[in-house]
Amino acid sequence: MRTQVGIIGAGPAGLLLSHLLHRSGIDSVVLERRSRDYVEHRVRAGVLEQGSVDLLRRTGLGDRLDREGLRHEGIELRFGGTAHRIAMTELTGRAITVYGQQEVVKDLIAARTAVGGELRFEVEDVRLSGLDSTSPVIRFRHQGREEELHCDFVAGCDGSHGVSRDAVPAGVLTEYERQYPFAWLGVLAAAAPAASELIYAHHDRGFALHSMRSPEISRLYLQVAPDTDIADWPDDRIWSELRTRLETVPGWSLNTGPILEKSVTGMRSLVVEPMRWERLFLAGDAVHIVPPTGAKGMNLALADVALLGDAFAAWYDEGRDDLLTGYSDTALRRVWRVQHFSWWMTSLLHRLATDDPYEAKLQLSTLHYVTSSRAYATSLAENYVGLAEV
Amino acid sequence: MRTQVGIIGAGPAGLLLSHLLHRSGIDSVVLERRSRDYVEHRVRAGVLEQGSVDLLRRTGLGDRLDREGLRHEGIELRFGGTAHRIAMTELTGRAITVYGQQEVVKDLIAARTAVGGELRFEVEDVRLSGLDSTSPVIRFRHQGREEELHCDFVAGCDGSHGVSRDAVPAGVLTEYERQYPFAWLGVLAAAAPAASELIYAHHDRGFALHSMRSPEISRLYLQVAPDTDIADWPDDRIWSELRTRLETVPGWSLNTGPILEKSVTGMRSLVVEPMRWERLFLAGDAVHIVPPTGAKGMNLALADVALLGDAFAAWYDEGRDDLLTGYSDTALRRVWRVQHFSWWMTSLLHRLATDDPYEAKLQLSTLHYVTSSRAYATSLAENYVGLAEV
Repeated sequence: MRTQVGIIGAGPAGLLLSHLLHRSGIDSVVLERRSRDYVEHRVRAGVLEQGSVDLLRRTGLGDRLDREGLRHEGIELRFGGTAHRIAMTELTGRAITVYGQQEVVKDLIAARTAVGGELRFEVEDVRLSGLDSTSPVIRFRHQGREEELHCDFVAGCDGSHGVSRDAVPAGVLTEYERQYPFAWLGVLAAAAPAASELIYAHHDRGFALHSMRSPEISRLYLQVAPDTDIADWPDDRIWSELRTRLETVPGWSLNTGPILEKSVTGMRSLVVEPMRWERLFLAGDAVHIVPPTGAKGMNLALADVALLGDAFAAWYDEGRDDLLTGYSDTALRRVWRVQHFSWWMTSLLHRLATDDPYEAKLQLSTLHYVTSSRAYATSLAENYVGLAEV
Repeated sequence: MRTQVGIIGAGPAGLLLSHLLHRSGIDSVVLERRSRDYVEHRVRAGVLEQGSVDLLRRTGLGDRLDREGLRHEGIELRFGGTAHRIAMTELTGRAITVYGQQEVVKDLIAARTAVGGELRFEVEDVRLSGLDSTSPVIRFRHQGREEELHCDFVAGCDGSHGVSRDAVPAGVLTEYERQYPFAWLGVLAAAAPAASELIYAHHDRGFALHSMRSPEISRLYLQVAPDTDIADWPDDRIWSELRTRLETVPGWSLNTGPILEKSVTGMRSLVVEPMRWERLFLAGDAVHIVPPTGAKGMNLALADVALLGDAFAAWYDEGRDDLLTGYSDTALRRVWRVQHFSWWMTSLLHRLATDDPYEAKLQLSTLHYVTSSRAYATSLAENYVGLAEV
């Protein structure tokens, strides 16, 4: 089997890259370890930056997004018993759209399938070779058969546990990491969201986030200890803790309903540099992780492959290698901007486990400042909706 | 001896308070441990916020300040071999004025002396009593004689090593502190400043600051280890290190000249709360210290006593105690804003001793962001020139 760009991973990054390449007349094959059903239903991120929405619309993926996505023009910061709105659109002219990652994945799979795009699900034992030659080979097993995919380039979009990054020889990549002493307990509940915009709540007992996936489905999070066992959190305890941390503003109360899904996710920051080795280009979670507080993970993955799409087009259409050569440096500027913003939002809102009283006072001062200074609020807003240029 | 407000300390805070009280018809006596010559010549801070300048002008202290002060409408951030200007006045409509603390002190002493204000220098063994009564007494020795000063209130403006804070009973005050793993080596040099605005330089070898006191006198700083012995820094070594860290922009070079004074100063952040106990009101360095990076120490001291001046005037003129009661909470809002800004500027620009590579990358990303985002640059600028309201 032969293609131009072999893509590992059918998450938003791999699928969008395949879609963008197709639009530029470049052939690709996407290999995914999980089943189609799995990737179309896994619950992950749910906030699209303005730039992500624009990109999806521009490339023909805007129909259902425009119909079902919830456009938000602000977020709320709740602390000290009061609610403060960051008027994102008023401050920046841009907005975010709430639309689940799995919906983006469904739209992308539908678009690729409609034009006969080659997507292989449930592939096993993926091995990369010849990455430092002009003809890399991807070997894998599919439906019991050994397969070989010959290609010009490989795009590693297979997340933080994928095989692509490990194909780079030792000593080439540098990892930059930060651990956080807390995790998020997330629930999906069949309850109408009690607010039309996201609520980021700072509370002495820890952070809470009131979010949504649709007008009928709430998405709620609680800061918990990193070693939390989900078994210790029966539904009643979750609702009680959510009420304590969120019902701090007079007259506001949470809507409850059956919990459809719950899980605990650790928080970390990770950057792997560079994002390219020879003919292997890495994108998305395969080379960077952000804590979810800034809602940036999926957006950053889409931004990476937008650059890659242009870079491959320049190579195939015009024989230019400057964009491929510059890919890592260009992408890393946004990666680090987003790392900083995600770290900042996380540090601003969580209960700090260090119990450093000086730090806790700075945090409160920063919350007061970001809700009173137009400049500082704009800085939050422009990062949250996504900077056009970095 | 009797007065209305007994003031401990003839730094900018104590002297300005005495001046403001006089203008409101309130009598005060200032007691200072050092000599007049000492306080008029000690080299300290040198940047006045717009609000500080406005306050000094408004209260008749603007003549020499307007003649000799250097108004600056921007600062430069220098890193990665390039210079970036933060156009403070363009961004905020406000500016800073370079004018040494000792010049402010000279002007204040002259103003107090001209109207017969009672300033006692070289007083020893100051003891406060009766602070929880309506008639506190300050006992001290002056020119060999034991003296007693009876007053309605005591203002403790005697800095971080003063006696006022220690007069508060144990358990009343809470201290919030942060140490930094570096210090500043500062020099005053008879050399014309090589730039008309301050240069804050981020460098792999550590932070450097190019500043000035007058068109003939440069004020220069180097980040050094906290245990630095000034004897290890002969003038040649200082100039060489300043050149390395500052001459990173093509065509720019440092002007050198005889070093008139050099010293090493530790960096810390400290807040003591509350700023009042009974009839004792604390202001300035007596209750808060900031690292000098944000140029905030003197400005914060002046802002404290501006509040105190109004609060005493409301008490004596109208019998209102609301401003005295609210003094600590009101002042602490600005204190914590300034603490955050000073910590942020310090963290942004210094070589971090932790050698955490993730942190170092965030630092560079933040430098790029603050020099490319109008919103974030405005946030730096509005804090640097001083927020009117906090």
